[in-house]
Order: sequence, then C-alpha cells, then structure tokens
Amino acid sequence: MEKLYEKTVRKEKLFSGRIIDLYIEEVELPNGKTSRREVIKHPGAVAVLPLLPDGKIVLVRQYRKALERALVEIPAGKLEHGEEPLASAHRELEEETGYRAQSMRHLISFYTSPGFADELIHLYVAEGLEKAEDGAGLDEDEFVELLEVTLEEALEMLQQRDIYDAKTAYALQYLQLRRALGEQNAE
Amino acid sequence: MEKLYEKTVRKEKLFSGRIIDLYIEEVELPNGKTSRREVIKHPGAVAVLPLLPDGKIVLVRQYRKALERALVEIPAGKLEHGEEPLASAHRELEEETGYRAQSMRHLISFYTSPGFADELIHLYVAEGLEKAEDGAGLDEDEFVELLEVTLEEALEMLQQRDIYDAKTAYALQYLQLRRALGEQNAE
Repeated sequence: MEKLYEKTVRKEKLFSGRIIDLYIEEVELPNGKTSRREVIKHPGAVAVLPLLPDGKIVLVRQYRKALERALVEIPAGKLEHGEEPLASAHRELEEETGYRAQSMRHLISFYTSPGFADELIHLYVAEGLEKAEDGAGLDEDEFVELLEVTLEEALEMLQQRDIYDAKTAYALQYLQLRRALGEQNAE
Repeated sequence: MEKLYEKTVRKEKLFSGRIIDLYIEEVELPNGKTSRREVIKHPGAVAVLPLLPDGKIVLVRQYRKALERALVEIPAGKLEHGEEPLASAHRELEEETGYRAQSMRHLISFYTSPGFADELIHLYVAEGLEKAEDGAGLDEDEFVELLEVTLEEALEMLQQRDIYDAKTAYALQYLQLRRALGEQNAE
C-alpha cells in the first residue's frame, strides 16, 4: 500500500458550506512528483429501501438542483451532526414518507464518488412499515412526491431514467437478486 | 413535476478546478421561500467491469486522497473533453490494466451523488480481453496495482471493505445476479 500513498504537502480549505466543504491538496506522488487533488468533504448519508407488506417499494420524487431535473429515488438524506446511521435511517424514512419501520436492516455501505468526495452512504432495508399516526411532517425545505410501486414498475422507471442514481439502482438490483435466489417473500 | 421545481434566483461560480467546479445557487422553493444549493459540476465518468475468459475480474487498487486510503475498484476514470463514453471505456481499461476488450457492452448509467453533484457514471462490461502487445502505459499521475480475482474473492474484499464504492458494489452484485439467473458462462 505504501507505494500508492500520496503525501499531503499543502492543504487549503476553499469553501465551507451547509453540506459540503472543498479542499485543494497538493500531494507528493509515489514517484516524487507533485500533483493537485480537489477534495469534497461530506458528512455522509443514509438511504432506505422501504418494502410494504405486499412487496411494493416506497419511492420519492424530488427536484435535484445539481441535475436541474426531478429524480425518483429511495428515501435518503445526510447524517446530522453526531447522529448514528441507524437513527438517521429511521428519521429520514419517517420525514420523507410518513412511514415507521419495525425492522431496519443494514444492507451495505459504500462511497459514492471516491475520486473526489468522501461521501459514504449507509443503505438499509426497512420492513414492517406502518404509517405514523401523528402524521410526521416533511422538512421545511423538502418537497417530495410519494410513490408506491412494484419491482417491475420500478425497473421500468430505471429503464426510462426516471430512476437514475447509484443507490436506487443498487437497491433495485438487490431486490432482483433476492427474488432470483428465492429468498423473497411470497407474492 | 412543476410543483417540485426550484427556480434559480442567483448563481455564483466559486471554484473552477481540473475535475470539478463549485457553484452556489440561490433557489426559489415551490412555497415561495428561498434556499441555497451547493452544486458540484463534474464532466462524468466511465467504469468498466473487465471479465477474463476464466471468469476472473480485473480490479485496480489505488490511493484515494478524498478518503486518505487505498481502495480496490473496477477500472474507471473521468470523461475527457468531448469524448464518447464507449471510447472512454476502452481507453480507461487499457490505460489502467493494459487489457483491450473485444466486447464492451453498456450495462447501466447512474448519477453517483444527485444531492450535490452531477457526476454521471457509465458502466460497461468488458469481455474478450487481450493484453495489449505494445504494453500500454499508465497515466503519468496514476499509480495503480492490478488484481485478478474470482467473484468469491471480490465479495470477500467487499465484506472486508477493501472494496467500498458504489460502482464496484453494483458491478459485483450484477455478477451475483447473472449467476443466480444462470446466464453466466460455464466455470
């Protein structure tokens, strides 16, 4: 591993935002040359694949300013300061969908863009869903549409690129794999 | 969709880098309030799942400055200016592994971090691999270690978090699904 290491020679914080920070780092490469790395620091995030008793998936449509379009995704959100991923998964599911989950199982965690960012997403599978009777509210600045679809409908949305992001694509492929392995609930 | 739209009121470019640009956008929310969006612009990228005739997967270990650690990933790289994703996939495969592919099939494209970045990754499956006889060289600033592993070995690396990124996790799950569906080559 040592022969791959990039030593930081100089590090400058160019921007400190509400969600991301930007650093420029001058690094010494293994061959002694120097190069520059552009690094985004992110607090990390959770995503939840919510499965209803009838096998349908709860999805949210929301506007993504970075893309200037709306996407359909599994519910997700960034970790609040000091928050445990599991608690965050329960919070985001309820805030975005109004559902509470009896079971919240960790599926996988992965970095989304290791080439320039340290965002780590923790993905959970939520089952035993019940509507929160006290009518959980959305975040003030969050505008989302709820969808409840079958796996086939979700795969069609992936084909049509209404679903178009890594975490949701991974989650749907997970359901396909689970079905192929025969471990899925009867439907 | 209209009711989700966020209108840009003001847009400022804070940083223009070698790989990413950073914008701050003041937006008008559907309820008339304003908010601020931090947006990273990225040229897009390709990733390649290279499969050897014996079913082994070609992976690369490289240092990721954003994470301050090395990761094992499928070969990937950003799109050069004006480059088609398919041409980029062939180029990156050869630059990072020294292999040329007779078959390069598009598997899926997805946004990696739609919450703050527009990076779109195009994922390909490369088969019919042959070592380039003229010994393709690495990029000057790229230091990578090559690995050739079975799917089981790769899944163990995922378990151990040597493999820890979305595109590689997706690619490995794709191979599991292909095997479960019985469409994989005999091995």
